[in-house]
Amino acid sequence: MEKRLAELKLRLREINDLEAAAALLSWDQTTYMPPGGAKARGRQIATLSRISHERACDPALGRLLDELAPFEESLPYDSDEASLIRVARRDYERAIKVPPSLLGELWQHGAESFQVWSSARAENDFPAVAPYLQKTIDLSLQLADCFPGYDHPADPLIDWSDPGMSTQAICVLFKTLRAELVPLVQAVAEQSAAADDSFLLRYYPPQRQLDFGLGVAVDYGYDLACGRQDISRHPYMTSFSIHDVRMTTRVDENNLSDGLFSTLHEAGHAIYEQGVNPDYEATALAGGASSGVHESQSRLYENLVGRSLPMWRHYYPALVQTFPEQLGAVPLEDFHRAINKVRPSLIRTEADELTYNLHVMIRFDLELALLEGRLEVKDLPEAWHARYRSDLGLSAENDIDGVLQDVHWYQGVVGGAFQGYTLGNIMSGAFFQAAQEALPELPQQIENGQFGPLLGWLRENIHRHGRKYTPNELVERVTGGPLTIEPYMHYLRQKYGAMYSS
Amino acid sequence: MEKRLAELKLRLREINDLEAAAALLSWDQTTYMPPGGAKARGRQIATLSRISHERACDPALGRLLDELAPFEESLPYDSDEASLIRVARRDYERAIKVPPSLLGELWQHGAESFQVWSSARAENDFPAVAPYLQKTIDLSLQLADCFPGYDHPADPLIDWSDPGMSTQAICVLFKTLRAELVPLVQAVAEQSAAADDSFLLRYYPPQRQLDFGLGVAVDYGYDLACGRQDISRHPYMTSFSIHDVRMTTRVDENNLSDGLFSTLHEAGHAIYEQGVNPDYEATALAGGASSGVHESQSRLYENLVGRSLPMWRHYYPALVQTFPEQLGAVPLEDFHRAINKVRPSLIRTEADELTYNLHVMIRFDLELALLEGRLEVKDLPEAWHARYRSDLGLSAENDIDGVLQDVHWYQGVVGGAFQGYTLGNIMSGAFFQAAQEALPELPQQIENGQFGPLLGWLRENIHRHGRKYTPNELVERVTGGPLTIEPYMHYLRQKYGAMYSS
Repeated sequence: MEKRLAELKLRLREINDLEAAAALLSWDQTTYMPPGGAKARGRQIATLSRISHERACDPALGRLLDELAPFEESLPYDSDEASLIRVARRDYERAIKVPPSLLGELWQHGAESFQVWSSARAENDFPAVAPYLQKTIDLSLQLADCFPGYDHPADPLIDWSDPGMSTQAICVLFKTLRAELVPLVQAVAEQSAAADDSFLLRYYPPQRQLDFGLGVAVDYGYDLACGRQDISRHPYMTSFSIHDVRMTTRVDENNLSDGLFSTLHEAGHAIYEQGVNPDYEATALAGGASSGVHESQSRLYENLVGRSLPMWRHYYPALVQTFPEQLGAVPLEDFHRAINKVRPSLIRTEADELTYNLHVMIRFDLELALLEGRLEVKDLPEAWHARYRSDLGLSAENDIDGVLQDVHWYQGVVGGAFQGYTLGNIMSGAFFQAAQEALPELPQQIENGQFGPLLGWLRENIHRHGRKYTPNELVERVTGGPLTIEPYMHYLRQKYGAMYSS
Repeated sequence: MEKRLAELKLRLREINDLEAAAALLSWDQTTYMPPGGAKARGRQIATLSRISHERACDPALGRLLDELAPFEESLPYDSDEASLIRVARRDYERAIKVPPSLLGELWQHGAESFQVWSSARAENDFPAVAPYLQKTIDLSLQLADCFPGYDHPADPLIDWSDPGMSTQAICVLFKTLRAELVPLVQAVAEQSAAADDSFLLRYYPPQRQLDFGLGVAVDYGYDLACGRQDISRHPYMTSFSIHDVRMTTRVDENNLSDGLFSTLHEAGHAIYEQGVNPDYEATALAGGASSGVHESQSRLYENLVGRSLPMWRHYYPALVQTFPEQLGAVPLEDFHRAINKVRPSLIRTEADELTYNLHVMIRFDLELALLEGRLEVKDLPEAWHARYRSDLGLSAENDIDGVLQDVHWYQGVVGGAFQGYTLGNIMSGAFFQAAQEALPELPQQIENGQFGPLLGWLRENIHRHGRKYTPNELVERVTGGPLTIEPYMHYLRQKYGAMYSS
């Protein structure tokens, strides 16, 4: 069995190497590649993806996993070996169910749809991209049908990024969240309206912004010996090994919070991947447990830590020293209120901590309606506007700020792409509460700039496990029960209550 | 046949995509990769190399090439289609002759040997790396034996990088070159001794050096929409597509010529690859014809153009304006003599235009002696010192500046790695003479900063052909005869004669 386990690791390593190479090609595409390189790069990434998918579907891999089944059963569920075989089997069984022809069509159509969307968005021309969106929905349903036995066609699509999560369970969570969030947003937005945040929009020299943000990321625990930061249009985290986890950020010389909190967000993702057990390098256990768990780490460091008062009690003097002309006359409390200002808006990526989830849930609900056939593509723009009016009290003047704003539906599949953002927010509350229970001195530690205890707790309880546990298993282990919205809502109420009671 | 040709292109494209991906991984390794990424990166490059080699040896590719043989024979030799099939067959037949086990052993041993050399070099401990070098020689001979029928074991190794070139032909060329070069070096070095070049070693702000060098490269014809420049320890050129050809450089704040001429050298390589017929993208015809032809382009732009008086009549005022404190009091002629100062030295990579070839020929001769068994590894250091004494009149005090200075023998094979440098110098003279005959106004054009005519001639006669012709075919086409040292020696005599007659 030792020999078979070694062969499994060898096969997984090869798949992982191909995926890491494709990821580096994508990273370069968004950071350093000259424009002329675009065409060949698309082709090269497609070639690597195809070959790695071929290897991931190799029947010899399936036979090996079958042969290893008795060995797996002889071991404890959460042993590294049993988990490796279990997760590798999950990946294999998912991979083989999708015919290469469908996958090829999805990639091809995704690339074309992206092109059409790019110009349709520029010209506020939803009808131009509508037939592409319809085809994406059709292909998404075909993809779902590769996994028969589902309760809802979104189930397999969600399972892809948030294993073990179901449409129904998410709907229940989101329904209660929305019911509590909508009135809270209204109340806080009213209180928050008077808060001045104009000083965040002064001129902030870009390099100083970058240095400050990266400095905080390093204080959090991001290891530059195993990572680096570059500039890209859309910030993201990517990893080529547990020891090479990179983040990108952007910087707006007239907006301090955009680049700063993007950096802290990506730092949360990157610290997660750097913290995976190094023994899992290049196996099926490397990487994050799900898109939701990943987002819980980025949100935790961006919001629960990064926009907290203790954090800025520590950093604000240094920030003022870095930007004396811009912030010298701004008291800490005003700065804290400004970076937490709640203001319903039309654009998800610019939304504050509270309203962000409303944006996500609108998309999630519309996805389900599209997949179920309850909503036709031609009626989507109006359905979008209607939900923004009811949930956020706003109406976009066009589809650029409406249904055309996010790339997700126009380059991948419809279904499974949005729920992770809000699941992550909910989990960030649950995990942070558990951390606070284990570390009663946490707020004081943060105020002292001591981020080691929090990092240690996250490493021990979440990061090091990588993909070993499903999100539900992980939540159960960490919080002692299933995922609920209470810790997250408790955090929000307490934070915003404190901010406006003083 | 159309269908088979299309299938051939598809197969070559896949191999090319894998090689391009491996090249990007290597580029990142030397430019941006954080230190922690090293271990995984070595593995990832090895995985991609192995897979691309597997595809390059695929028997189905061989059958396809057999089926295409009659089609190839029905077409003119230099048609794109016939050339594609011919060069693809040459690559295929070379690839299948090397057993994967030997290739794996070469890669593995190369990596180990490199490690041992790195510390042996630091500690001037040749005996530590000697057994590794012995094994490299043994493996190199095994590699040569995969190509039976050679006259000299170095033949197949040379053929790998300089197709069609033989040990014997190179020995004849080099013998005449050395006979003419050694006395010329002595004469010029004496005349040149009084030339002051100390002003090149003043403080030159790095960013201004980089901007100036890249500006000249762009004037030469390097297209930044299809390329970029980054910093690495050892400058090199690499390409991921005809439309993404990058160069790296280095910069020493206390040495103007090191970074500047490195940049112009790599620009020559990069302009060559950018000029290949775009129809050849991702086929066996993309890339340069040989290491020698490649070096001819880099040397042409670095030396024949880049260290010429017409060139600096054009650029020197701008250079003085960029570095007024450093060069304001230095007349053009003094600057020109300084960047062409001839001074026998111990280190190849720091050698001037004239002595450089002596360094290369020493290595080439020692390689042959090692492969033939005329020289034992234990006697190599003394043989090295003896040749430096006789050819350059210098003796190194240690092996760091002797046999340990170059990486080539310690990470790859012994044989085939050095001759391209001097072949390239010889070819640069032959090609430049042909260009001058076709462009009588060339010196004046260069003096006016008009680099377009030269670029156009190189594109038309050399660059666009990519790998279509062997080096000998290309030289024959361009110069009307076989490669001789006369044009190169003529160029050298004229240049250094003019410099010290005034």
